[in-house]
Amino acid sequence: MAERLVVIGGDAAGMSAASQARRRRGPDDLEIVAFERGGYTSYSACGIPYWIGDVVDGPDALIARTPEVFRDKYGIDVRLHSEVTAIDLDRREVEVRDHGKAETYRHGFDQLVVATGAVPLRPPVPGIDAGGVFGVQVLDDGVAVRRAIDDGAKRAVVVGAGYIGIEMAEAMVEHGLDVTVVTREEQPMATLDPDMGRLVRDAMADLGIAVRTGELVQGIETSRDGTVEAVTTDGGTYPADIVVLGTGVRPNTDLARDAGIALGRSGGICVDLRMRAGGDGVDGVWAGGDCVESYDLVSRRPVHVPLGTHANKQGRVIGINIGGGYATFPGVVRTAVSKVCSLEIARTGMLEADCVAAGLRFVTAIVESTTRAGYYPGAAPITVKLIAEVRSGRLLGAQIVGREGAAKRIDTLAVALWNEMNVEEMTSLDLSYAPPFSPVWDPVLIAARKAWDAVEDDIQRWHRASGGDDAR
Amino acid sequence: MAERLVVIGGDAAGMSAASQARRRRGPDDLEIVAFERGGYTSYSACGIPYWIGDVVDGPDALIARTPEVFRDKYGIDVRLHSEVTAIDLDRREVEVRDHGKAETYRHGFDQLVVATGAVPLRPPVPGIDAGGVFGVQVLDDGVAVRRAIDDGAKRAVVVGAGYIGIEMAEAMVEHGLDVTVVTREEQPMATLDPDMGRLVRDAMADLGIAVRTGELVQGIETSRDGTVEAVTTDGGTYPADIVVLGTGVRPNTDLARDAGIALGRSGGICVDLRMRAGGDGVDGVWAGGDCVESYDLVSRRPVHVPLGTHANKQGRVIGINIGGGYATFPGVVRTAVSKVCSLEIARTGMLEADCVAAGLRFVTAIVESTTRAGYYPGAAPITVKLIAEVRSGRLLGAQIVGREGAAKRIDTLAVALWNEMNVEEMTSLDLSYAPPFSPVWDPVLIAARKAWDAVEDDIQRWHRASGGDDAR
Repeated sequence: MAERLVVIGGDAAGMSAASQARRRRGPDDLEIVAFERGGYTSYSACGIPYWIGDVVDGPDALIARTPEVFRDKYGIDVRLHSEVTAIDLDRREVEVRDHGKAETYRHGFDQLVVATGAVPLRPPVPGIDAGGVFGVQVLDDGVAVRRAIDDGAKRAVVVGAGYIGIEMAEAMVEHGLDVTVVTREEQPMATLDPDMGRLVRDAMADLGIAVRTGELVQGIETSRDGTVEAVTTDGGTYPADIVVLGTGVRPNTDLARDAGIALGRSGGICVDLRMRAGGDGVDGVWAGGDCVESYDLVSRRPVHVPLGTHANKQGRVIGINIGGGYATFPGVVRTAVSKVCSLEIARTGMLEADCVAAGLRFVTAIVESTTRAGYYPGAAPITVKLIAEVRSGRLLGAQIVGREGAAKRIDTLAVALWNEMNVEEMTSLDLSYAPPFSPVWDPVLIAARKAWDAVEDDIQRWHRASGGDDAR
Repeated sequence: MAERLVVIGGDAAGMSAASQARRRRGPDDLEIVAFERGGYTSYSACGIPYWIGDVVDGPDALIARTPEVFRDKYGIDVRLHSEVTAIDLDRREVEVRDHGKAETYRHGFDQLVVATGAVPLRPPVPGIDAGGVFGVQVLDDGVAVRRAIDDGAKRAVVVGAGYIGIEMAEAMVEHGLDVTVVTREEQPMATLDPDMGRLVRDAMADLGIAVRTGELVQGIETSRDGTVEAVTTDGGTYPADIVVLGTGVRPNTDLARDAGIALGRSGGICVDLRMRAGGDGVDGVWAGGDCVESYDLVSRRPVHVPLGTHANKQGRVIGINIGGGYATFPGVVRTAVSKVCSLEIARTGMLEADCVAAGLRFVTAIVESTTRAGYYPGAAPITVKLIAEVRSGRLLGAQIVGREGAAKRIDTLAVALWNEMNVEEMTSLDLSYAPPFSPVWDPVLIAARKAWDAVEDDIQRWHRASGGDDAR
């Protein structure tokens, strides 16, 4: 008899796991049923802002594989609008609410993949559930925002200035809306240090986006019919026909927690290297994607990093393991990339604030260079910031802000971080050089040089301050 | 009394060494004289083809620092048209021919930097020294080629289809010349495997460049006044008003060899990690740039890799060491990048042929993907090829051919090679993802997955072929 695999959640992690498992085990050996509470499978949530901004088509173009493809090509039974409402680990059953047929049933499993994703954080203020207030987490959210814009929204307030907030702000500006972004942080893009975030703020201002920093949202004002009219902060009131929440997400773990599956310090489901959840003595329970916590290879702490690329990798690892193979997900170094208009933004590793919180002493280096040889057409500005540990010179984090061709250089730094390189060794890295692609010293190398200089200066200062050998 | 530093060669390695040494030691402590046999200092030889092609200005824009800047700002005495004709290590003197004043003199040193660069390889065929046959090595070569084009050259033959050959071919096509590229190799760009080189050949054909592969040059036909008229190969005769040699270079080591400085297996000057030349018992003799051999961290053999970025790094290391600091140049992984029109070309590590020569067993993986999410505007094709060792899965080499945004991804692979990563671990790398920058699986990650699959398949095949456990 075939083993029964149940997947909860039909997006990246869940469906990658299902597909990989299927690749290794046929339908006679493994029966796969995937429950998705929404109306889509395997879509690119990261593409939603670009669809809203008419940069890409949607929603169909954002869907990698439809339920029909999963059924017909992979022999995977995907059930849409089907919400798993309980997991019973003892009986090895899930309880499913079919919202289409308005009925509830139970379904047994031998292997279970929990891929319930994340849910937008909603500031706990009056009016937050009003009509016209949207998260941007699932494809259905995109459909809703899109409809509101088509229905004639003129003024938008975006709460939060992280990736989604900034991308949505740009998308709505493209539609001619007046857009105000409100954040309680010192600068937009708090995933960067404030000195780098300032460059992002300038680019947003150039686009005509009003940016209000250091303001805390206190309430959403609504009309009598319950739709949004304005956002009130401790700094002002901003009229709004539409409010988009870019205030981050939390792992969607209620279901797992209620089933007795352990959560970690970051709030995500605790998993081991093979993505097994449930802890000791619980076999055949796996979790991946935005609902789990990952191991940060730099800070060596658990972190919650909701990102489609991790979800895909984790799903693949789960699927290989369920399929009888062996694979692990070692962790993350917190690499991320985005853009505001033509300004590219990237980061990896720890921020200054993260280092302070972790008690690490560090030096920083910021360099301004160009993406190509200075004399070559299209040479665009690039600012690279590195953070390195004192004494050891170990790379702790990196940030890049620049124009065309700048951001993807973060990958070079992510691989250096992954391998625990120190900035001195990095000055020797054999990075590609030709005038159309880089100055003779790639900006990453220049930054490594400057960071190592800072490490050496710090050692000398420390030596002098401690009296040094000469004084003894 | 100040120590005396003599630098032979006024380009990247020599002048980087001089500048770095000066940064750490003032003129009262270190007197610096640099002898340059040509008419320029610190220029980008790599920029010459782009200047010829009118993509960039030249020659002044290619000069990073002039002799005046070195003199006035750095206190470095640069002497142009001054050729060092002998090094006397016993007396610690160099013999200098001042071509301007047509006189010869001797100059003493305490520290010596040999940075004599490379010279173009000239196929040993009749007519090779004819008027109208040019190398492209020093800025003066660029001046000469430029003049020939301005004087009305209509037909060009490029001998050799490496970086310089291809870049020069494109530059001359831009000027409306009929261009034929002749190479004895199976495909252009023999720094790639032939399957990747074929993509380059197609792009050259699209540009209107005639490509003749597998042909050996047998002679240069000249007119009575000694200027070139045609190139003859074993496959045909190609009329030419100008011939450009892209047949590679050799380290320019005659001076060093005559002085008793040891050369290595690759023909370049032998240096240690701190870039000291001269071997045991010879202090204060350094060498860097295109005249030295480097250690290949992948093949673990000495190699000659003439490239401006290495010359700069090596010069910096020499300068820090002469300046009283401590720095090393660990080696190279043979990263290189170029382009033909909009086709970007990059490589790092070993080719298949290198692996065969080294006796390494390997698998390969080639993937075709896009530089951005498939649904995002500007998503351009990219082909990534990885070579991995059997069993261990250790990355041995990588090649990329593609359009805008493709080539610089080679740096990610270069850092992975540097750190001796295996392709399985590389499947987990935390590379940046957002739709404008990458598919959710970056092409590098897809290639790593496919390469690891190939390693696993090879292990299974081997297991079956050897009988396996089951058969015992």
